[in-house]
Amino acid sequence: MLILGIDPGLAVVGYSLVEKNANKYRVCDYGVIRTNSDQENCERLMQIFSELKEIIERYKPDEMAVEELFFNKNVKTAIEVGQARGVILLTGAQSNIAVAEYTPLQVKQAVVGYGRASKQQVQQMIKALLNLEGILKPDDAADALAVAICHGNSITINRTIVSMKK
Amino acid sequence: MLILGIDPGLAVVGYSLVEKNANKYRVCDYGVIRTNSDQENCERLMQIFSELKEIIERYKPDEMAVEELFFNKNVKTAIEVGQARGVILLTGAQSNIAVAEYTPLQVKQAVVGYGRASKQQVQQMIKALLNLEGILKPDDAADALAVAICHGNSITINRTIVSMKK
Repeated sequence: MLILGIDPGLAVVGYSLVEKNANKYRVCDYGVIRTNSDQENCERLMQIFSELKEIIERYKPDEMAVEELFFNKNVKTAIEVGQARGVILLTGAQSNIAVAEYTPLQVKQAVVGYGRASKQQVQQMIKALLNLEGILKPDDAADALAVAICHGNSITINRTIVSMKK
Repeated sequence: MLILGIDPGLAVVGYSLVEKNANKYRVCDYGVIRTNSDQENCERLMQIFSELKEIIERYKPDEMAVEELFFNKNVKTAIEVGQARGVILLTGAQSNIAVAEYTPLQVKQAVVGYGRASKQQVQQMIKALLNLEGILKPDDAADALAVAICHGNSITINRTIVSMKK
């Protein structure tokens, strides 16, 4: 199964493509979509839509996992990034991919097994799970990898629970 | 010129189609797009996209005016409504319509001439400008009319300033 992980943003959208076979993960690609703050909102949203659509058409992922936003103060930023996230969700849904959403807490819980894990702990765990040589850069792409693995682990856990119930 | 006014939301999107000829306004249509809170986020965003696209294709407006969101507290709601607003901006931009954005203060300023005008004052002014018999319902559609008129008035003001500068 090929999972597309997304760390949403307006200026930077992190993405990752992770293949899951049994309980093994393999990174197929990762990167960021960057938009320019000099441009109009609409143009930035159009760019996110078209670049993400291109990634989806190129790799044809089976499922998509998008991190939820966490802001405790700046409402203006929350709205702006929310706008970009809405476009990201729409792009996935229009491509007929099942879209799952995870909070930052769920991502940490699923990757490290501890919801209050530090950024470093998450990155170390991803490095180990994916047999990477170093810590993946930039951060947004690393976060996108974490949410893809979170989705992969959640599916395993959910299917185990279902089979235990039978 | 045909203006599409939008009062953005996730549960309810207000829309209006207002024709401007010289300094006269005529309402062509108005209404709301409603989405069900029982549905997934992605489905609601897809519905907003497809219904708004249908409205744009039916009426072929020349310009689109979208009200900005104003929240001072609830960040969770701000993100959710921001997501819907992002999809709305994208829908307009993809249809090659010029999209303008106005704050609630700018809408009141342009319609009533006073940024702190009450909702009732805005509605009364719209009723007068559009020769309506009563106050237009629901509120979201009335707000969408206000932002369309705000855009119409702003264009007039901007062109007057430009011609005065020449």
